[in-house]
Amino acid sequence: MTSDNMQRRAEQMVRDAQDTICQSLEVLDGAHFRQDLWTRSGGGGGDSRVLQDGNVFEKAGVNTSVVCGTMSPEAAQSALGRGRNLPEGTVEFFATGLSVVVHPHNPMAPSVHANYRYFELAADPTAPSWWFGGGADLSPSYVIREDAVHFHRVHKEVCDRYDPGFYPRFKKWCDDYFYIMHRGERRGVGGIFFDNLNDRSKDQLFQFISSCARAFVPAYVPIVEARKNLPYTNLQKHWQQIRRGRYVEFNLVYDRGTTFGLKTGGRTESILMSLPLVGCWEDTSLPDTDSPETRTLEVLRHPQEWL
Amino acid sequence: MTSDNMQRRAEQMVRDAQDTICQSLEVLDGAHFRQDLWTRSGGGGGDSRVLQDGNVFEKAGVNTSVVCGTMSPEAAQSALGRGRNLPEGTVEFFATGLSVVVHPHNPMAPSVHANYRYFELAADPTAPSWWFGGGADLSPSYVIREDAVHFHRVHKEVCDRYDPGFYPRFKKWCDDYFYIMHRGERRGVGGIFFDNLNDRSKDQLFQFISSCARAFVPAYVPIVEARKNLPYTNLQKHWQQIRRGRYVEFNLVYDRGTTFGLKTGGRTESILMSLPLVGCWEDTSLPDTDSPETRTLEVLRHPQEWL
Repeated sequence: MTSDNMQRRAEQMVRDAQDTICQSLEVLDGAHFRQDLWTRSGGGGGDSRVLQDGNVFEKAGVNTSVVCGTMSPEAAQSALGRGRNLPEGTVEFFATGLSVVVHPHNPMAPSVHANYRYFELAADPTAPSWWFGGGADLSPSYVIREDAVHFHRVHKEVCDRYDPGFYPRFKKWCDDYFYIMHRGERRGVGGIFFDNLNDRSKDQLFQFISSCARAFVPAYVPIVEARKNLPYTNLQKHWQQIRRGRYVEFNLVYDRGTTFGLKTGGRTESILMSLPLVGCWEDTSLPDTDSPETRTLEVLRHPQEWL
Repeated sequence: MTSDNMQRRAEQMVRDAQDTICQSLEVLDGAHFRQDLWTRSGGGGGDSRVLQDGNVFEKAGVNTSVVCGTMSPEAAQSALGRGRNLPEGTVEFFATGLSVVVHPHNPMAPSVHANYRYFELAADPTAPSWWFGGGADLSPSYVIREDAVHFHRVHKEVCDRYDPGFYPRFKKWCDDYFYIMHRGERRGVGGIFFDNLNDRSKDQLFQFISSCARAFVPAYVPIVEARKNLPYTNLQKHWQQIRRGRYVEFNLVYDRGTTFGLKTGGRTESILMSLPLVGCWEDTSLPDTDSPETRTLEVLRHPQEWL
C-alpha cells in the first residue's frame, strides 16, 4: 500500500525479534519451543511458538503474525480508535506484530508480556493510515523492588534515546491500561504501553519499537536468571496461582486485543496463548497484614515511581 | 413499589431455596458452608455461602441477594433489554435472586449452575416493569448420557406443569446462551434458561420459578451421589481443569451478569463466586479421536435432544 517498504521491514523486525527471544529463553530453560505455522483464510498467517512445562518456564509463548485483507467499517473504526473518521465500505489493512508472554514456574520469578505491532489501514488509498503500538509489562507474584527498577530502567533508557517525554507518558499509559477495575488492582508493576503512535516520522517510530523489541531480553532475562532457583513454599506457589487467576481476569475482561480478537473470529489459540497454565480462584480472606502478599497488593493498588 | 407483595414473596422464596440447597449439599459433602453477610451501600445486601475444598466439592457457592435503589438510565436500559423504551433520569429498582454454582472434585461428577431472580423497575411509577429470569445448566467434563437425561427430565417435568411450550423454548435458549463462540462449544449439556419473562400473570411465573428452584436438589444431587466416588486418573483430572478453564472463559467473556456486574461496580466476590477453584490453559492438541474427551467435545459442539 505504501512505497516505503515499511510492511516488509516491520515484518522482518518482528521475525528477528522472535528468533532472538526464543533462543534466549531456550538457553535459560534447556527445553525447546514447539512451532506452529498457520495461515489465515482472509490473507497472511503466523508463527506461534510455545514452550510448555519446561525447566524454568511453566508456559512461554512467542508469536508473530503478518495479516492483511479487508475489514468491516466497524472493525476499522475500532482499530483506528476514537476521534478518527469512520471509513465507508470495507477497507484494506495490513498488520504485523510480535507477542510475548512468559509465565515461569518459580513464584519469585515474575511473568512478563510484550507486544510490538505495525498497522496500516487504507481508508484513504492516497494516504493510508498507519501506526505503531506496543509495550512491555512485568507481573510479579511477589514484588521485588530491584527487579521492577531494572525492568523500568531498561525501558526508560530505550525511550530516552528517542524522546525524554516517552518514558513518563508510556509508563503512566501502562499503569492506566493494565488496571483490573473490579479488583482495584493493576495486573503487575507495569512498564511501558502505547498505541496508535504516528505523531512523528514513520522511520523514527519504527526505530523506536525495534529498539523496544530488542530490549526484551536484557530487561527480563537477568531477572529470571536471578530468581529461577530461589526456594519457595506451597503457600507461595498457591499465591502465584491466585495472581495468575487475576491475570486471566484482566485478559478476558479488559484487554482490548483479546476481547476484540475473540469476538471477531481471531485465531483463538494465538489470542489465548497469553493465559497462564493454571489460574486459581479461591474464596479467600486477605493474607495477614504486613505479609509479603499484602505488600505486593499494596503496590498493585498504588502504582509506584520506580526510577 | 407494587402492592402484590411480590418483593417479599420472591425474597422469601430465594432464602428458603438457599437453605434447602445448602443443607442438601452439606449432607452430601460432610463439610459446612461458610456464610458471609454483606450490605450494599446503595441499598440492600446479600447472604453469600461458600463451601470450599470439602470432601465431595472443590467449590460450591450458594448466594442470595436483595438489592434496591436507583440505577442510571443506561443500566436500566441494559436490564430492560432490547426493544423497550429508555427511561429518562435515574429509576428505582428492586432485584432479588438466588445463584448456585457447584464444582465437584471428581471429574466424573458434573459442575452445575442455577440462578433464579425477580426484578422490578419503576420506569413508569404507575405501572412498574417486572420480570423473572433464571435457569439451570449442567457442565460435565465427561458427558454421561443418563445424567444429562435425568437433569433435563426433571426440568422438563417442572416446565410441563406450567406450559408444554416452556421446555423446548427454554432448552434451546439455554443451548444458545451458554455458547463459547471463540471455541465453537457450549459450556456444557445445557438445561433451561430464560430472561425477561413477563408474558403471563406474575403469580403464575412466580410459582413457576419457585418450582424450578425446588427442582435443583432432585435434578443435581442424585447425579453427584452416583459419581462422587468413581475412580479417575490424573489425565481425567487434568481434562476437568481444562474444561474449567473454558468455564472461566465463558463467564468472563460472554456471561451478561458477570461482565455487566464487574463493569458497573457489582460485588466482585459474589459475581466471581462462579469461577472454579482451578482453571487450566494448556497448549494442547486435541485428544485422540474417539476418546471420551473427544466424544464430550462432540456433544458440546452439537447440542443434543436428550429427551
